[in-house]
Amino acid sequence: MGKFKSKYDIFRQQTRIIVHGTTTKAGRIFDLILLGVILLSLFLIIMETVEGFDAKYHSQLVFLEWVITIFFTIEYILRVISIDKPVKYIFSFYGIIDLIATLPMYLSLFFPGTSILTVVRALRLLRLFKIINHPHFTSQSIHLKEAINASKGKIIVFIYFVLICTIIIGSIMYIIEGKESGFTSIPTSIYWTIVTLTTVGYGDISPQTPLGQIFASLVMILGYGIIAVPTGIITAEFAKRNINSNTNSDTFKTSCAKCNTVIQNKEALFCHHCGNKLNDFIGSS
Amino acid sequence: MGKFKSKYDIFRQQTRIIVHGTTTKAGRIFDLILLGVILLSLFLIIMETVEGFDAKYHSQLVFLEWVITIFFTIEYILRVISIDKPVKYIFSFYGIIDLIATLPMYLSLFFPGTSILTVVRALRLLRLFKIINHPHFTSQSIHLKEAINASKGKIIVFIYFVLICTIIIGSIMYIIEGKESGFTSIPTSIYWTIVTLTTVGYGDISPQTPLGQIFASLVMILGYGIIAVPTGIITAEFAKRNINSNTNSDTFKTSCAKCNTVIQNKEALFCHHCGNKLNDFIGSS
Amino acid sequence: MGKFKSKYDIFRQQTRIIVHGTTTKAGRIFDLILLGVILLSLFLIIMETVEGFDAKYHSQLVFLEWVITIFFTIEYILRVISIDKPVKYIFSFYGIIDLIATLPMYLSLFFPGTSILTVVRALRLLRLFKIINHPHFTSQSIHLKEAINASKGKIIVFIYFVLICTIIIGSIMYIIEGKESGFTSIPTSIYWTIVTLTTVGYGDISPQTPLGQIFASLVMILGYGIIAVPTGIITAEFAKRNINSNTNSDTFKTSCAKCNTVIQNKEALFCHHCGNKLNDFIGSS
Amino acid sequence: MGKFKSKYDIFRQQTRIIVHGTTTKAGRIFDLILLGVILLSLFLIIMETVEGFDAKYHSQLVFLEWVITIFFTIEYILRVISIDKPVKYIFSFYGIIDLIATLPMYLSLFFPGTSILTVVRALRLLRLFKIINHPHFTSQSIHLKEAINASKGKIIVFIYFVLICTIIIGSIMYIIEGKESGFTSIPTSIYWTIVTLTTVGYGDISPQTPLGQIFASLVMILGYGIIAVPTGIITAEFAKRNINSNTNSDTFKTSCAKCNTVIQNKEALFCHHCGNKLNDFIGSS
Repeated sequence: MGKFKSKYDIFRQQTRIIVHGTTTKAGRIFDLILLGVILLSLFLIIMETVEGFDAKYHSQLVFLEWVITIFFTIEYILRVISIDKPVKYIFSFYGIIDLIATLPMYLSLFFPGTSILTVVRALRLLRLFKIINHPHFTSQSIHLKEAINASKGKIIVFIYFVLICTIIIGSIMYIIEGKESGFTSIPTSIYWTIVTLTTVGYGDISPQTPLGQIFASLVMILGYGIIAVPTGIITAEFAKRNINSNTNSDTFKTSCAKCNTVIQNKEALFCHHCGNKLNDFIGSS
Repeated sequence: MGKFKSKYDIFRQQTRIIVHGTTTKAGRIFDLILLGVILLSLFLIIMETVEGFDAKYHSQLVFLEWVITIFFTIEYILRVISIDKPVKYIFSFYGIIDLIATLPMYLSLFFPGTSILTVVRALRLLRLFKIINHPHFTSQSIHLKEAINASKGKIIVFIYFVLICTIIIGSIMYIIEGKESGFTSIPTSIYWTIVTLTTVGYGDISPQTPLGQIFASLVMILGYGIIAVPTGIITAEFAKRNINSNTNSDTFKTSCAKCNTVIQNKEALFCHHCGNKLNDFIGSS
Repeated sequence: MGKFKSKYDIFRQQTRIIVHGTTTKAGRIFDLILLGVILLSLFLIIMETVEGFDAKYHSQLVFLEWVITIFFTIEYILRVISIDKPVKYIFSFYGIIDLIATLPMYLSLFFPGTSILTVVRALRLLRLFKIINHPHFTSQSIHLKEAINASKGKIIVFIYFVLICTIIIGSIMYIIEGKESGFTSIPTSIYWTIVTLTTVGYGDISPQTPLGQIFASLVMILGYGIIAVPTGIITAEFAKRNINSNTNSDTFKTSCAKCNTVIQNKEALFCHHCGNKLNDFIGSS
Repeated sequence: MGKFKSKYDIFRQQTRIIVHGTTTKAGRIFDLILLGVILLSLFLIIMETVEGFDAKYHSQLVFLEWVITIFFTIEYILRVISIDKPVKYIFSFYGIIDLIATLPMYLSLFFPGTSILTVVRALRLLRLFKIINHPHFTSQSIHLKEAINASKGKIIVFIYFVLICTIIIGSIMYIIEGKESGFTSIPTSIYWTIVTLTTVGYGDISPQTPLGQIFASLVMILGYGIIAVPTGIITAEFAKRNINSNTNSDTFKTSCAKCNTVIQNKEALFCHHCGNKLNDFIGSS
């Protein structure tokens, strides 16, 4: 029994390395397979909406969906048994998502033909966000998140200002162009303004009168300037982070032999903290 | 009477905190309610232009409009009685806007069916700009305004140059494409040029001849480079501000009383040059 | 005669101040009037291409054109007589442009109905570039020109690379989509590629097959990244200039009393050029 | 024979300078001619797909193709005989591309009418990439490559995140708009999302329902913010490189042999700290 216990322990430990690990080779391969299965699952859900696809490949789709379900079920069981605090995992956000990912086909046995199952299956998509937290990407995504968070305040003020502008521009275009040109109401005009200011420009609605075209030209030139603002905000944040990380790597650092204070001034002759003469430098990083 | 006076004073003071205050909790809740009522009012004006909406919900719209009017009226009275210098407020820009916001329904009793009332109601939109001056956003919007103001000179020169380009490109496209392709006149061609250079691209007018398509391709590649310029101008301003604010927050400058060495380290107790104890800071921030 | 001479001299001097000057008040007002007349002239040329406009306002157009011609003629004569080296001016680039600007109506008396006159009149547009050299804008436009010039090398390499990409993408889309979807030839496909990569997106040609839409999606995401490159190049140049000008304004400058060398190091105790002890600082800018 | 040998050696040497050289005048002229022939060749391939072009100019096209083929053949032979290690060249990437560029017309003699020859001819395009490695452009393209490589990690994380967003947005739009508005399936909806987020905006599919238009507006405003991210990433990299290269080119570091002060001024003859004459530079760049 003890022997079995220890064998089970080894099995649990190895499973943990594979299923939860991200740095070992086995763990990385498992992550890649898991990513592949999630993408396959999403691909199936998406393709089912294409006309004629479900009719043509119905049996294959059901078969693949069962393969995916069984894979997710085994993976979920392995995750629960191999982790030290299974309860904490089960009730965590990703734990619930992982459980939900396994359910649809089992539920379809009891409640056949309910379209809610498609939505439940689509929730598997959320598992993809877990990968962004992967150590390989963490440093990159932290950098991204930091810059975006730091820009948030300015961007909210900016979007608030742009939205007021879209209401004003939309109302003016509604008055200028009127119902004949497709500007049937102020909401539609505001929709056109957003399409134009963001330089998307579908062309489903476009000004027909000369006055409307002149005003639209002004709006576009304004949009030109406006699009520069969020870019400027975010770029400045990135540049700041880059320059800072740059400066730090060049910084000369030593410390006082007497009081251990960190000294960054290259030309210091005396410790700025205790006045001790710095005659022996203890290296630069 | 004195007792009533003092009660009235307390009422006035509390009203001032709620209506004019922006930092207390009550003040902030009132600001949020006010924002909600303004947005509701704008939403109603906008939705009235949607075909069939007014016919369907006419009585509800009138009812809601009266609710909003009474809310604005009470708010206006409270603002006037609670402020110390009511006359100054009444004739200030936002004071007039606040008054105008209350009027439309009262005017509609005397002058029914005038469309000017819609325009007057739409002026309530201007109250939204007041929120940008809210302390919560001030630092952000000051930052934005500064960067945009500093860029103004360069952007005007740039837009002047772009406008000359649009005239030249528009004229050339008018000659190349001619009336059959929708380039019916030089103004229309200039409109097309702006639509293309700003990468909006409605597609209501597009080149049909091979030569026109080649020239349009060149214009688009030019537009590619051109769109980079305002972005570059504004981004550089943001970056400058970010780096400066970064540097400033780190900068602390004083100088040693004995050897006059500039000391930038805030925590320095001794001069790093001569070891003199820094007991009197001459400090400039 | 001598008296007349001196009166003529005063007249010439005053004319020079008004016509050639840009810093005096009279000079600036004259420049504004001139700008107005040039813009009016351009406006007339442009509006003549609008259907029905010429027929409706023919006599007014001819009258205004004569007013503009006489204004330009007088201005040209004043410029020639008031300048010190008239021959140099007459044969300079802007001198020729100024002369050409006066000619069309005189030529129309001798060669009526030639459309070449419209082109000659359109050359008045070139006078608008002179204003960019105006002292008021010079510092701004120098800044712009410098940044754009410094970016030129990188942008040429970038456009060369993008053009090769458009040929490759265009060819692939021609093979994928074929003639039915509007991709009638490789040149047309390349045109579509440029329209897509620059995010203009007219929609006159768009992929119809699923494979074409998938490939087009990849091209758009690529275009996403590509549009960032010229912006990045130009922005970095602007930022560099801004930071440099920023740093310079903060720079401490003094000079050695003995050898006059400029000293920028704040902590210098001795001149780095002649070894002279720096005991008297001659100020910082 | 020895005399002939030496003549042949001179011929080989001169050929090497012309064919392989990039810095001499003859080498540069040859490079330009070669570029012209490659572009002509590509132009012919592209124009052959234009309807009616081949029928009209068939004999001229065949003639020009033979001229190009003979030019490439001679060039290939000259490259092989003039280089020191011909085998290494022949089996290098550009050696194989150069050989393939000569083949199509010879192959067409044996296998007439095979469309594969067009693809083989199109491979001549790859020769254009060689020019980017030209010394004239190297410094520029290295700069570009470095910045793009350094941004790669962040951009992959960003695109991964955007792709998840497109799936979510595409699915929601499919549910909101349905089949009537052109959103026939989730893949089509995802295609529309990419067209919108990248601000291309063909307009072949556009939301028709009010709810769809509101949601599309939100997507566009999101796209506004999203487009700023890759621009920010790449710009920050460029800015970093620019500032560094700026700093590096100005930086010169040595230290005083007597007092060990770091000296950054290139023109310093004496230590600015102790006045010691700097006659031996310990210099590190």
